[in-house]
Amino acid sequence: MRYAIKIAYFGNNFFGSQFQPNFRTVAGEILKALKKLGINSKLAFASRTDAGVHALGQVIAFNSDWKVTPNMLNSELPDDITAWAFCEVPENFNPRKAKSRVYSYVFYDEGYDLSKIKNALELLEGTWDFSNFTKGYRGGKRTIYSAELRKEENFLILEIEGNAFTWNMVRCIATALKNVGKEKELDWFEKMLKPEVHRERVQPSPPYGLLLKDVKYEKIDFEIEEYAKRLLQRRIKNRLIESGTLYKLLSLELESSNSRE
Amino acid sequence: MRYAIKIAYFGNNFFGSQFQPNFRTVAGEILKALKKLGINSKLAFASRTDAGVHALGQVIAFNSDWKVTPNMLNSELPDDITAWAFCEVPENFNPRKAKSRVYSYVFYDEGYDLSKIKNALELLEGTWDFSNFTKGYRGGKRTIYSAELRKEENFLILEIEGNAFTWNMVRCIATALKNVGKEKELDWFEKMLKPEVHRERVQPSPPYGLLLKDVKYEKIDFEIEEYAKRLLQRRIKNRLIESGTLYKLLSLELESSNSRE
Repeated sequence: MRYAIKIAYFGNNFFGSQFQPNFRTVAGEILKALKKLGINSKLAFASRTDAGVHALGQVIAFNSDWKVTPNMLNSELPDDITAWAFCEVPENFNPRKAKSRVYSYVFYDEGYDLSKIKNALELLEGTWDFSNFTKGYRGGKRTIYSAELRKEENFLILEIEGNAFTWNMVRCIATALKNVGKEKELDWFEKMLKPEVHRERVQPSPPYGLLLKDVKYEKIDFEIEEYAKRLLQRRIKNRLIESGTLYKLLSLELESSNSRE
Repeated sequence: MRYAIKIAYFGNNFFGSQFQPNFRTVAGEILKALKKLGINSKLAFASRTDAGVHALGQVIAFNSDWKVTPNMLNSELPDDITAWAFCEVPENFNPRKAKSRVYSYVFYDEGYDLSKIKNALELLEGTWDFSNFTKGYRGGKRTIYSAELRKEENFLILEIEGNAFTWNMVRCIATALKNVGKEKELDWFEKMLKPEVHRERVQPSPPYGLLLKDVKYEKIDFEIEEYAKRLLQRRIKNRLIESGTLYKLLSLELESSNSRE
């Protein structure tokens, strides 16, 4: 039998999702956990994520002679990876063949012109060759179904859904949007979407703002395991409290250092 | 000559302020920097801080045959310690003999009864034996000049100023205040301040919420070095953006995991 499992992970302490000998990776930890459960299967991922990138709805698939639930996996996984939903899938299921991926990218608002950024986001929807937004120039055509920006306090949140994404694509889009919000014209952004006439590399924005929020499929109906979901939420909340505390403390420190003349 | 220098540090990657062989400590890093500057002096701290505790206005003192400025120190220090103000002081200056210390403690609001906490804070002002709020039962009398609480979003910020603080005192006070905000009566808090009639240990709240904000002296007039201050502010802001981004991303993740049923 073959299983697809939804997993979440905190990216900080991983050298990315893909297996690398001698480095701590998401795949490496999951393969170890599977081995402890007596399962020796190849492991497939829906989307590769780089070091530092977080995931809520990453999807993995593997073969097993018995039913594997998120709770079982979690009992063998470290506490920065949490499985929370599962589905038995056809033998030939390839998690890369998804209908769409949803990413969020969070970044600090340095006083950008948000209406200009929103115009760029409208341009983005549709099918483009994203070679200029791709590490290694191996780009290719991808379709963006929706791209939206909202502001929360001093932070901007980009939500983007597309059929697929090239390597570093969301982080390069984030950089291009920041450029548009600062000094670049909309024309420039439009040219960037046409690598056949304009070749230019933008550097990816930092990985720690990126969340792989969901991967959607045509026909797969994931079953959420309530206990695993609550475990995940507790883990997210603990880290949220810790990072929020540090954020507040540093805000206080900055303010206080400003007031000393 | 003897110098007093105000330093800030991010506590995460230190095993506390005090020198320990084979561990990365604030004192260890400063002694290394002084050695590189050709200074072989004992190093005194105004206040000891535990692993994970942050400082904005810690004060150190050492002897040197030549004038040592924050900029000079910063050129040899790692980027998680920043000197930002200095003063030549009398030969017998002991930084522990301060007029007062100011601490901030940041913690998550789990729905506490804030008016009850504020009543406890009023009680706190004055001179008490803080043995029940001290690691190792070595307490003693300390005077609290002011203790205030404010709320910012989901976080509470305690600001407390006193002549001196016993080991773990602020973090134990934070725990006791949380208890009062949840289920303990004000009577209990009052009893805790009287170790001669009531002995009870409270566990310290986590170190990462604690900031040593300032140490004040009667007659020392610190000179702020503008360049060093801006360096510090840039460093704080970089970390603030990183922790704030993670906080926002995790908030988003929690919210999104909630909406999946």
